[in-house]
Amino acid sequence: MKTRIILGLVFILIISSQLSSEEGMYPLSEIHKLDLKSIGFEIDAEDIYNPKGISLIDGIINLSGCTASFISADGLILTNHHCAFRAIQSASSKEKDYLKNGFMVENRNQEVEAKGYTVRITESYRDVSREVLAVVNKDMDFGQRTRAIEKKIKEMVVETEKKYPGKRAEVAEMFPNKTYVLFISTYLKDIRLVYAPPLCIDEFGGEIDTWMWPRHTGDFSLLRAYVGPDGKPADYSPDNVSFHPKKFLKIDPRGVDREDLVFLLGYPGRTYRHRSSFFIAYEKEVRMPYVINLYQWMISVMEKIADQDRSVAIKLAPRIKGLSNVLKNYQGKLKGLNRIKLVLKKREQEDKLQAFIDSKPETKKKYGPLLGKIRDFYAQQRHVADYELLMDYLLRGSTLLNTAYTVYEASIEGQKKDTDRKPKYMKRNFSRSKKRLLLRLQNFDQQADAIILKELLNRALKLETRRISAIDKRAGWSESGKSIVNLSQYKKNIDAFLKNAFEKTRLTESEFIRQLFARSAAELEMLEDPFLELSISLYPEYKKLDEKSKKRKGIFDDLASQLIEIKRAWQGQEFIPDANSTLRLTFGRIRGYSPADAVDFTPLTTLGGVIEKNTGQIPFQVPRKILDLYEAADFGAFQHPVLKDVPVAILYNADTTGGNSGSPVLNARGELVGLNYDRTFEATINDFAWNEQYSRSIGVDIRYILWLIKKFGGAHHLLKEMGVH
Amino acid sequence: MKTRIILGLVFILIISSQLSSEEGMYPLSEIHKLDLKSIGFEIDAEDIYNPKGISLIDGIINLSGCTASFISADGLILTNHHCAFRAIQSASSKEKDYLKNGFMVENRNQEVEAKGYTVRITESYRDVSREVLAVVNKDMDFGQRTRAIEKKIKEMVVETEKKYPGKRAEVAEMFPNKTYVLFISTYLKDIRLVYAPPLCIDEFGGEIDTWMWPRHTGDFSLLRAYVGPDGKPADYSPDNVSFHPKKFLKIDPRGVDREDLVFLLGYPGRTYRHRSSFFIAYEKEVRMPYVINLYQWMISVMEKIADQDRSVAIKLAPRIKGLSNVLKNYQGKLKGLNRIKLVLKKREQEDKLQAFIDSKPETKKKYGPLLGKIRDFYAQQRHVADYELLMDYLLRGSTLLNTAYTVYEASIEGQKKDTDRKPKYMKRNFSRSKKRLLLRLQNFDQQADAIILKELLNRALKLETRRISAIDKRAGWSESGKSIVNLSQYKKNIDAFLKNAFEKTRLTESEFIRQLFARSAAELEMLEDPFLELSISLYPEYKKLDEKSKKRKGIFDDLASQLIEIKRAWQGQEFIPDANSTLRLTFGRIRGYSPADAVDFTPLTTLGGVIEKNTGQIPFQVPRKILDLYEAADFGAFQHPVLKDVPVAILYNADTTGGNSGSPVLNARGELVGLNYDRTFEATINDFAWNEQYSRSIGVDIRYILWLIKKFGGAHHLLKEMGVH
Repeated sequence: MKTRIILGLVFILIISSQLSSEEGMYPLSEIHKLDLKSIGFEIDAEDIYNPKGISLIDGIINLSGCTASFISADGLILTNHHCAFRAIQSASSKEKDYLKNGFMVENRNQEVEAKGYTVRITESYRDVSREVLAVVNKDMDFGQRTRAIEKKIKEMVVETEKKYPGKRAEVAEMFPNKTYVLFISTYLKDIRLVYAPPLCIDEFGGEIDTWMWPRHTGDFSLLRAYVGPDGKPADYSPDNVSFHPKKFLKIDPRGVDREDLVFLLGYPGRTYRHRSSFFIAYEKEVRMPYVINLYQWMISVMEKIADQDRSVAIKLAPRIKGLSNVLKNYQGKLKGLNRIKLVLKKREQEDKLQAFIDSKPETKKKYGPLLGKIRDFYAQQRHVADYELLMDYLLRGSTLLNTAYTVYEASIEGQKKDTDRKPKYMKRNFSRSKKRLLLRLQNFDQQADAIILKELLNRALKLETRRISAIDKRAGWSESGKSIVNLSQYKKNIDAFLKNAFEKTRLTESEFIRQLFARSAAELEMLEDPFLELSISLYPEYKKLDEKSKKRKGIFDDLASQLIEIKRAWQGQEFIPDANSTLRLTFGRIRGYSPADAVDFTPLTTLGGVIEKNTGQIPFQVPRKILDLYEAADFGAFQHPVLKDVPVAILYNADTTGGNSGSPVLNARGELVGLNYDRTFEATINDFAWNEQYSRSIGVDIRYILWLIKKFGGAHHLLKEMGVH
Repeated sequence: MKTRIILGLVFILIISSQLSSEEGMYPLSEIHKLDLKSIGFEIDAEDIYNPKGISLIDGIINLSGCTASFISADGLILTNHHCAFRAIQSASSKEKDYLKNGFMVENRNQEVEAKGYTVRITESYRDVSREVLAVVNKDMDFGQRTRAIEKKIKEMVVETEKKYPGKRAEVAEMFPNKTYVLFISTYLKDIRLVYAPPLCIDEFGGEIDTWMWPRHTGDFSLLRAYVGPDGKPADYSPDNVSFHPKKFLKIDPRGVDREDLVFLLGYPGRTYRHRSSFFIAYEKEVRMPYVINLYQWMISVMEKIADQDRSVAIKLAPRIKGLSNVLKNYQGKLKGLNRIKLVLKKREQEDKLQAFIDSKPETKKKYGPLLGKIRDFYAQQRHVADYELLMDYLLRGSTLLNTAYTVYEASIEGQKKDTDRKPKYMKRNFSRSKKRLLLRLQNFDQQADAIILKELLNRALKLETRRISAIDKRAGWSESGKSIVNLSQYKKNIDAFLKNAFEKTRLTESEFIRQLFARSAAELEMLEDPFLELSISLYPEYKKLDEKSKKRKGIFDDLASQLIEIKRAWQGQEFIPDANSTLRLTFGRIRGYSPADAVDFTPLTTLGGVIEKNTGQIPFQVPRKILDLYEAADFGAFQHPVLKDVPVAILYNADTTGGNSGSPVLNARGELVGLNYDRTFEATINDFAWNEQYSRSIGVDIRYILWLIKKFGGAHHLLKEMGVH
């Protein structure tokens, strides 16, 4: 017996070392440096990215921050349900509850606009570091440096888009003060909703299962890209025609199995792996606890309100979903940071780096004080954190205050030269910014907004290090620098201000806001809308904060680029840049892991597991039709040959983060076998540190998607369009 | 890759079929029928039970309802901490908090009395079915039958104990109306506490982990049996000497590994595998929900009180622990019953049985109405369940009412001939019954008792089918048969009664109670103690209930024996009797299981897992010393060769139930390798149905016990006594 066990272990060890995956989100520029064949790819680097021809990346989409892919010649798009959530939500009403009941059409005429959604398809990239950094000179202070770089980037973007009409340009910072890359993308603006399963499938498990394995969520939806009758990108119009992508992904309905190679292409948002221990400590001890506390409270407020009325619930759904997702992610991160003692480990590494620096006179001279400076940088940030976090969440928290502030800021920015404006007020962005603001206002619920704003204003009354005078003034207290003496009276004054403000304001009316966007700052000042007035009095404070953060970014970039430089010298290696919402390749294996002593997770879940979790109640409610199909073992061609069941989710050790949602999971031949949508709870700290032990991402198995579309949805025409029979 | 996976699956299947364990708790009479060699035993049936010589069962103990075993020539006993809990608790105080801090002695003189504990060692057994059933004749009604059998059993027990002085006799019903077995045991009454780890080890995981895998609890303790200087069983005395058992178990400090054979000897309490679907439905729908509701409430009441004061917490600890354990067990059972749809399955089986019965005229004539009668039997029980359950829990719920009732009942029973008395008032039991009552009174907390009794009396006011007139009278309501009209006034009257009762009663005084046990019923009636008065007025009602339950037992026995008869005929096989607190053998393999889709549990946990669960807070608090030992990898000889860690718990598919707590887990050679203490959550329904898929029991790995005694406790003298170096 013992011999057998030992054999088993040896077998696992061999697999692990032989096939182990590497940490890494590789930019396009790095793909050709990888030895893809030895990793297990059956295709070449040129099949993935070919600047001179057609390749997989021509089928990969940045869908308003998520990833998606084309899966038919007629522009059919596959992405997560949670990525299309706001589109489905804004098309839903109490009567046509697409969120709850799902969405399906008989023919293309019935496809509905995915409001506010855009598609970007990366076409090419170019290193523009030299041009960007040429605008900086030694005489500039840190604030001036940041402004100069920002302005140069804006100019390059505007020039490029002028040169290539209809395209979208972005300059991404790969390494601060070091590497900048210009990306040009095809940009489509008419996106429509094609198919969404009902809530009980695409949110199966709800917040309980989010960031968890084993997983049984059918988190997918289908959209379609449209262009003008001339084939060119166009805004939504009934006359538009479906887009024909250069490339669409081929589906392999046979799926994958454990230890198979998979790779993902996508737009991972942000990682912080090159950051110092002091940054992690700040996140762990200051920022994340602040956000967790605030979001927990906000969610409980909104859930209580949503419980009363389904139409209010639909309005509040995207916000509750968004906050809950961040909340659980941060909770996972905090747990993980404690578990792997990352701050301590990074600090030990920094001690060694310091010893390396101090070992040679030339490095000691140049980098000797570096780590101390980084420490001081975050010490200062901690000092003002309460004030700055509140200033930030004040505008994020209240929809009405945010609307008022945006309207007022637009009136000022609009006077400036285009490339001097904040990005969202630039001509290339402004109409979309307005649309998003108006869409957000559709979800406005006065009860929730009033409770949240009141809480934030009350928090402002308790600030210590720095006060917000615009709020103090409204509370009837203005003795800056002295401690507040009559908190309960000030709170009453705030209550009175809010009562009047919500009664009097017209900022809840879309048409009124549209008109306001045409007004000058002076005209707005005369309107006597309480939210506008509050915004106007807050404006100088935000302005100052803005200046300060530009200066801080300058200091940070300088410190960060030095840190990377000396680490390169120390470790004698190049680094892959942190994720920054640009197109990346990542790969790994279908593989389980052990989340705890005596527990092994295997990497495929099944429809049987969906049934097992069924309680008959949301979020674990299985529709009758699925129960019947399971009872009848009606799995069709999508049955796993050994498990004798439909695989539902897959687990793999590829390196992903937020933004990879909706990324196609591809097999060694580059065929679609899954749809990435989440990570495991242990893997929430991927953003800070990747590890083979616990870093796992979760995808919907393509077999579950196809089975649902065919057997549950009966949408045979869609399967035909995808080339699956 | 796929080939490898399939190979892996085949490999597992071969193991499963080759080594699969059988359901079964085999009585001594069945052991020699098993083909032990082919199962994997390396010892013979005679090594386990040898009526003519010394065998393993001479080292197995029934320790006041739990199982235990001798592990040294000087009567050292190994059992669970939770089995010795009441002994440790009654020796503890706020100052000497052995529960919290553990218990250890330098030498035997310091061993303290385990109050109320006794040891039984099964010596022999004899089938007495014919003698027992000879007292029954056809003219008797069901109540008379029950009484006749009970009386005969009592007479045989008294005769046997007279014939073998110092021994203990018991007659166990193996199959109702069919098989009765007389057991003779050595009976020891001076048991002392030797070693207990601190609470943070022996209750590691607390109620959260109870009935769960993976498990990391060090649930063990050591006691010692003493006898008089003449070597004969004796009550506690400082002059007593340590007992020398005929047999003590040899320890194998190398432990076991996955798929190794293990077997257990022990005293499993109750199983119900031969019961009908109607019994299971009654348990599921009526009795268990009633108990869950009541216990949840009682626990919350007591926890609130315990939170205020550690000395009160110590008093309430055993009761809270006991109720919580039952609570979680019932919750697991309900979940399991729903999951495996046992009522439905049993009913389908009964339909087939009915078809078999109906298929032949002779069986149809004899057994045709049987299942219908069983159904009616439980329908009647449901009808009076509210009343009977409340009557039952009224005496269990309030310590003072229980004390008063026992005192009064003793005065009546004491007048009867010894074998006419209820067992607990028979001469052979009465002094111990009194001791237990007085021990229980030590844990009396007036606040808890008053709240619980009030709740139960208020429940009585709401009874519908049948009323409790003694309580109605005290509530000022006596119109039996009419619905109650002024509930709030009656509740006030109950409050007033209770206020006066708790003020006036002297039943909290041990000395007073000792005196009461010498009084006659008439004398007690004159005492005017409110609790005695309530008991006296309840007495006729309990008396009636008692008569009724004897009659019901007669009916049940008749139906149950017919059911077994016809099932035997139908299935053409003999059955193993349900567990009934008699000595049983069970065996299985060290084996994990899958609790859910994509989750595998492996069958050994480790010290690393203890560390992993450490939160620094009870119940997941790891002592500094253990953290240090783990950090230093100071595992000594107790390290698992592959895991490179100390194994903490083992999992096996042997068939166990309550009463198996403390059972030694033995390897194929009959050497001690673990200590049984729990089952998995899925296996709580073992009592109704055993299944290879989910029936798993949990033991402390002997390596963890030895490592704790040596490295944590430093009790080298104990290891030496056990023969471990």
